[in-house]
Amino acid sequence: SSVSVENGSNGNHQPEPIINLDHGDPTMYESYWKKLGEKCRLTIPVSQSLSYFANAKNLCWFLEPKLEQEIKILHNVVGNAIVEDHHVVVGTGSSQLIQAALYALSDSLNQPNPISVVSAAPYYSSYREIADFLRSGLFKWGGDAYKFDEDEPYIEMVTSPNNPNGVMREAVVNRAGGMVVHDLAYYWPQYTAITSPADHDIMLFTVSKCTGHAGSRIGWALVRDKDVAKKMVKFIEINTIGVSKEAQLRAASILEIVSASCQIGVEPYDLENFFEYSKNFMAERWKKLRDAVKKNELLSVTKFPRQYCNFTAGFTEAHPAFVWMKCKEGMDCEKVLREHKILTRGGKRFGSDQEHVRISMLSRDEEFDLFLQRLPNIIADEEV
Amino acid sequence: SSVSVENGSNGNHQPEPIINLDHGDPTMYESYWKKLGEKCRLTIPVSQSLSYFANAKNLCWFLEPKLEQEIKILHNVVGNAIVEDHHVVVGTGSSQLIQAALYALSDSLNQPNPISVVSAAPYYSSYREIADFLRSGLFKWGGDAYKFDEDEPYIEMVTSPNNPNGVMREAVVNRAGGMVVHDLAYYWPQYTAITSPADHDIMLFTVSKCTGHAGSRIGWALVRDKDVAKKMVKFIEINTIGVSKEAQLRAASILEIVSASCQIGVEPYDLENFFEYSKNFMAERWKKLRDAVKKNELLSVTKFPRQYCNFTAGFTEAHPAFVWMKCKEGMDCEKVLREHKILTRGGKRFGSDQEHVRISMLSRDEEFDLFLQRLPNIIADEEV
Repeated sequence: SSVSVENGSNGNHQPEPIINLDHGDPTMYESYWKKLGEKCRLTIPVSQSLSYFANAKNLCWFLEPKLEQEIKILHNVVGNAIVEDHHVVVGTGSSQLIQAALYALSDSLNQPNPISVVSAAPYYSSYREIADFLRSGLFKWGGDAYKFDEDEPYIEMVTSPNNPNGVMREAVVNRAGGMVVHDLAYYWPQYTAITSPADHDIMLFTVSKCTGHAGSRIGWALVRDKDVAKKMVKFIEINTIGVSKEAQLRAASILEIVSASCQIGVEPYDLENFFEYSKNFMAERWKKLRDAVKKNELLSVTKFPRQYCNFTAGFTEAHPAFVWMKCKEGMDCEKVLREHKILTRGGKRFGSDQEHVRISMLSRDEEFDLFLQRLPNIIADEEV
Repeated sequence: SSVSVENGSNGNHQPEPIINLDHGDPTMYESYWKKLGEKCRLTIPVSQSLSYFANAKNLCWFLEPKLEQEIKILHNVVGNAIVEDHHVVVGTGSSQLIQAALYALSDSLNQPNPISVVSAAPYYSSYREIADFLRSGLFKWGGDAYKFDEDEPYIEMVTSPNNPNGVMREAVVNRAGGMVVHDLAYYWPQYTAITSPADHDIMLFTVSKCTGHAGSRIGWALVRDKDVAKKMVKFIEINTIGVSKEAQLRAASILEIVSASCQIGVEPYDLENFFEYSKNFMAERWKKLRDAVKKNELLSVTKFPRQYCNFTAGFTEAHPAFVWMKCKEGMDCEKVLREHKILTRGGKRFGSDQEHVRISMLSRDEEFDLFLQRLPNIIADEEV
């Protein structure tokens, strides 16, 4: 039932291109941004931003004031997070902010042994790598939060909507000594209903998944406690002495456009509401995917409940950035897809099983269409 | 002999501003870059660089090809490093590359205990912090390289010219199992004579100290061994999933201008040779400083030998980015300067003594001039 990688599964001798849907590389909004074209370019004079400092008087001394302002405006426009009583800490993507949060929460405890970092399975595969790669004495990967039962301090990563499976999440351990980091990278209207503004101690966001500008490496944290925010800033100071000013300035101007696009009558570039556009875009992809696997006994895809979204003022189901696909029992799903030259991330990396894979829904149209075209072949091959 | 911080030492009641010469914030070339003005601005369309990838086929998959090209051109123009047989790895400043190198060299050894990171005193104060802040099980700070005598693998950081004292350096331990990282952030013609192209296994550079664009957070490593380069890339992938594309593109265009400014007849912006300008600039500051402390029995400043510089084709002495100042025996030099509202970094942070301080020579003119004005008062106060 396996296929020849050299010739592909469609029987002709033209080699099929490999489709990489392993990473969540968010190139899908490119056509939206291309419409802006020449009208919207960021220009930076060569004499600007020489200094390490953006605002020496701010707790986060390397944060560009304009970016801080646009982050706050966007959260208020979308209604997905409370910015009042929170400090904004900018990071080189949210990966750096996860590490900054682990450092800030663990270093101040002064424990003799590393504290456990847990997350409910299936969990974002990078948490384990991030927690363990330097064999830190401050923190270590503790695995599936559902299985954690130690009487000691711990950090729980709560990803909501969850990566890989798109469901809304809350903390599951809820023991004494617990500290929680909310990774809200996907809590934007194109992926899920905005049911209420999040208001947690540490909330992480990233431009990558909000607007699709992953190349900029800009993320931000909203942090309630001043000392925790200071420690996170300290981490970023030691790790990279701040965050690129060019990337911050560009992110600020992109967030400004997104906020403006959401407000009727103030669309400077005559653009469609960004979140309506991207939500419709994701909904269409999900519809196509569901159609492609509908009559399929090998592959199945989660259903999501309809919920009221305050932002769009209507009911919607979720359209996550990834498909968390389940294959027939006993099947090694990643391997089968790889034989069809579709690269995905196997379930074991997420603390789950080999019958699951995570597939990016954020690729360019050409790759997504090829992926849909190949799905029937997989079914045919496997059913022989 | 101490002075009132409230009123300052000049006897009037106008509060004196604090001068921060603790960091080496390289704002001193601002006037050079301002001359370029409107003629030289980087423009990035809003639809550009959405992807995490810059060149998926490159070992360093997040490195912009144009930046790689301009790095190689500049090293060939200046003659300060051999780029042939080296891989280019870009980092979020050279701080991230130091950590990437420590990770790459230590992780592959698979040692049960963290390996020592050493550097000859006085050493760059951040090495200790970088090596220790996460209490890594892979590496730990091992202190002054002159005192290291263990029979086990180690990593020696060789900073040349050295931060804080500006002298040229070579490895000092030279034992079996030793790995060396050359931090060449200051090996540019404005700071020291370029006596030969460096050709080491791992060489680190940064835009911050070369052109003064510290806000961009762009550094690069030239790495001979392919597996070490790959591991460094892996570190940056886990730590920040690559490096800001905006910052890389701007750095590329800045390095292009610098290279062009060095070549007679190809100056597109009618600009003075950047390194001649900056060398003359640093030489003038050093002359003023030496004049200010000449008749001073409390403070003294190192003399540097004259050496032949291949780049300028002439003899020159060094004009380091920092003064490593020695005070009279028994004096707490950082404290005395702080009383005069001059913030510097005390010698103990560099593995030296309190009679030394590091003072940045890279500030803006106003701050440097204020610093020179205050020096005679210090002398007068302390000599009472």
